Amino acid sequence: MTIQEALDQYNSWKFRLSAYEMALSIINIDRMTVAPSDGSAYRDERTAYLSGEKFSIETDPSILPVLDLLIGQPGVDSDIRREAELYRREFMKIHVIPKEEYVAFSKAATSSYDAWLKARQNNDYSIFEPHLKGMIEWQKKLYGYRKSDRPLYEQMLDDYEPGTDIAFYDRFFDRLKERLIPLIQKVQNAEPIDDSFLKQSFPEELQKKWTSDVLLPYLGFTKNWGYQNETEHPFTAWTCENDCRTTTRYEEYNMTAAIFSTIHEVGHAWYEHNVSPKFDGTILSTGISSGMHESQSRFCENYLGRSFPFWKANYTSLQNTFPDQLRDIPLEQFVRAVNASKCGLIRTAADELTYPVHILIRYELEKGLFGGSIPFEQLKEAWNDLYRQYLGVEVPSDCEGILQDVHWSDGSFGYFPTYALGSAFAAQFYHRMREEIAVDNYLERSEYCTCIDWLKTHIHRYGALYPAAKIMELSTGEPFNPGYYLDYLEEKYSRLYYL
Amino acid sequence: MTIQEALDQYNSWKFRLSAYEMALSIINIDRMTVAPSDGSAYRDERTAYLSGEKFSIETDPSILPVLDLLIGQPGVDSDIRREAELYRREFMKIHVIPKEEYVAFSKAATSSYDAWLKARQNNDYSIFEPHLKGMIEWQKKLYGYRKSDRPLYEQMLDDYEPGTDIAFYDRFFDRLKERLIPLIQKVQNAEPIDDSFLKQSFPEELQKKWTSDVLLPYLGFTKNWGYQNETEHPFTAWTCENDCRTTTRYEEYNMTAAIFSTIHEVGHAWYEHNVSPKFDGTILSTGISSGMHESQSRFCENYLGRSFPFWKANYTSLQNTFPDQLRDIPLEQFVRAVNASKCGLIRTAADELTYPVHILIRYELEKGLFGGSIPFEQLKEAWNDLYRQYLGVEVPSDCEGILQDVHWSDGSFGYFPTYALGSAFAAQFYHRMREEIAVDNYLERSEYCTCIDWLKTHIHRYGALYPAAKIMELSTGEPFNPGYYLDYLEEKYSRLYYL
Repeated sequence: MTIQEALDQYNSWKFRLSAYEMALSIINIDRMTVAPSDGSAYRDERTAYLSGEKFSIETDPSILPVLDLLIGQPGVDSDIRREAELYRREFMKIHVIPKEEYVAFSKAATSSYDAWLKARQNNDYSIFEPHLKGMIEWQKKLYGYRKSDRPLYEQMLDDYEPGTDIAFYDRFFDRLKERLIPLIQKVQNAEPIDDSFLKQSFPEELQKKWTSDVLLPYLGFTKNWGYQNETEHPFTAWTCENDCRTTTRYEEYNMTAAIFSTIHEVGHAWYEHNVSPKFDGTILSTGISSGMHESQSRFCENYLGRSFPFWKANYTSLQNTFPDQLRDIPLEQFVRAVNASKCGLIRTAADELTYPVHILIRYELEKGLFGGSIPFEQLKEAWNDLYRQYLGVEVPSDCEGILQDVHWSDGSFGYFPTYALGSAFAAQFYHRMREEIAVDNYLERSEYCTCIDWLKTHIHRYGALYPAAKIMELSTGEPFNPGYYLDYLEEKYSRLYYL
Repeated sequence: MTIQEALDQYNSWKFRLSAYEMALSIINIDRMTVAPSDGSAYRDERTAYLSGEKFSIETDPSILPVLDLLIGQPGVDSDIRREAELYRREFMKIHVIPKEEYVAFSKAATSSYDAWLKARQNNDYSIFEPHLKGMIEWQKKLYGYRKSDRPLYEQMLDDYEPGTDIAFYDRFFDRLKERLIPLIQKVQNAEPIDDSFLKQSFPEELQKKWTSDVLLPYLGFTKNWGYQNETEHPFTAWTCENDCRTTTRYEEYNMTAAIFSTIHEVGHAWYEHNVSPKFDGTILSTGISSGMHESQSRFCENYLGRSFPFWKANYTSLQNTFPDQLRDIPLEQFVRAVNASKCGLIRTAADELTYPVHILIRYELEKGLFGGSIPFEQLKEAWNDLYRQYLGVEVPSDCEGILQDVHWSDGSFGYFPTYALGSAFAAQFYHRMREEIAVDNYLERSEYCTCIDWLKTHIHRYGALYPAAKIMELSTGEPFNPGYYLDYLEEKYSRLYYL
């Protein structure tokens, strides 16, 4: 096989794979947003079949020698070599799984998601519990095919954040605990910030109008490359180049929920949208890791979106949309309120300070569950215990406890820790960005996209070309250091609460 | 091959085919409603590839002996024999086309649709003209593979309405012309009905709210089996069993456009939704012909939706939604206005009386185009001439003329005549339904679905089991007779205009 023959076969394979990926992505977005419920049995069966078709292409044995040739030949362009290495890594992970098992798992994951939705509607974990158990067993079985010596949970962590292990996360979370738990304690004892005005009735129709007329244009998320819909649990997905879909959820009595979820998801959207077009249609046009992805979304949501200059640009129009609710609330008071910290029950509603504790809890639960120290039957109890222990709150209902997150419903274990990691990455990027550009001025002048451009230049454009650690070094000039995150939180919350 | 072996192979083939059909349908619905424009090049290329995959299954030569066995064996269930016959009919039409031509046509049709959209945005036929020419040449080529002795346009007509030919449609349209042209003349000379209040500003947000809160529930189109979105040219599509998607278009200064397009599309939706579940996942679960489909949509739109009792049930809530615009308009005046007849330019905005003339014009254009009497270069002129001749109107712009319909953009020639045919079918059904049930009472009492149930029992449930002519005989006790349509229009418009 010549290099040219290998490249031809490789390009055809990538194209076929991308066609199925696009179809499955559109089907999935549709399912999560608008698809009528009564069609689910038929839809899910066919979707599982198409997943199997994609799997057959992905694991086609004839591609392995092609990938090996492209990786091993010095004459091959280094970007293509990197591409081929990443494809090979994915290939090795999944080609060991029998196709019928893969299809059965896809089906089970869909049913499990549906059961999770139903359990939420009924506020009853017992509806979801057997499916969750099924997902855990499925993952044990599927990972088992890899015959790796590493502990199962460590393999999961490494899938979402290549290069990490339990020791890494233990160190990371220990550092967070050490400084954040006392800080949270101090904040809880300080004079509380009154954010009750945010819990008035804000009609959803008006929230939607403000989001589409003001917020999305400010964020630069325009209809030519993106579309925002609504769903139970907000997410971002891609169907093909220049086509990104985000979702949000409007809550009448919690107006900021949709705002910050929108800023968050559009942060994800910008990441992959900004990858260099020369990687179009390849595995390099995705984000490098979940932690890096979350760093971009949480950067936008918190470091930009909860800042004073962000709201200096946007608050007047929000006040005009909700005059009765916000007329008497000055800008300063609004910004303080959207940053108020309170030990709560819901991860997605958590403030920046307590958020990593929600993640820590999930990390300990997952680690215990797969490490054997938490029996499955005690998972809900363990959840509630850890919330009591770390955040001092009692979980009054399943929806406010173990049923709140979508992730476990389709077997995504090991993802949660990347949220905290991403937040910490973001702090380091933020520190560096502020040294280079006048962030506040841009936000205030409605030039949000200038900040996005900094991220594009230093992070986004690389896509999956370099490992996360290398991107961190390239963009900030030093290795990852969670100290930036802890400093940022201490400084911000000490100032907010006059500590 | 035993019957059981044939059935197994057949069921597997149908299932695989339905999976691709579902994927392509969801991709297409997505594309026509929300997909960001900048992704179209990537999306279209991949979609065309997937169409090719579907084509390969559809035309798999190994299915032909299976179909032949199922058709020829007396031991096979008669429903399955009918299924197999219909699949065979489709197979014979397309298996002669080389796959690469089929894929290239799919791509060209997508580009042509995009060009049509762009041409509309610029009100400039010249942007679309070369694509339209391309679609005509494509169809000539693709039909050429069938090597049929029948004239090309006749083959097209027969594809949309099996059993029809040019002679049939000539007779049909001659009968319409004979009685409708003088009637239209009389109506144009009568005292006009003032419908100017319908052209006030009706904010789109409020139209949407009324549609989702009042109209769709009244029509029985609920979220468990359907979803309505927005698009440039309203349509209805299915993705799988119990999952139907409709679209509409809101116009601020023409509030009734979205209302009647909604009722129309939901009429299509009900047809296939009501097919007997024993035909799920088969070709029998679709409508039998385009004419029969349009008969159901136009039945709902006009025979039910423009009637007095329909609005007796719904007008108050519409008035409450638009108090400033409708407060002083009594119900009787509103219903007269939504039935006002005026020779106009736009087919979809046409009243019931002039509507078939818009179709007649398209029929004559298509027949002339494919028969050779109208050169392609003179198509726009011929369009404008026929509008002058039959409706006495001058076409002031391309958007109000040749660019108004989506159909030709993807090469759907021969479809238009089924709109007039469907309207005429509907009149015969309406006549019979009124003999059997108290239509007006049900509409007035918000029991719209009782009327739908009559359609289900007599038409919908059969799906594609019987030819249209047989369904007409079964449901009305006699063969198709356009006299019912002409009587209905004469009676209705004589009454409305005090002729």
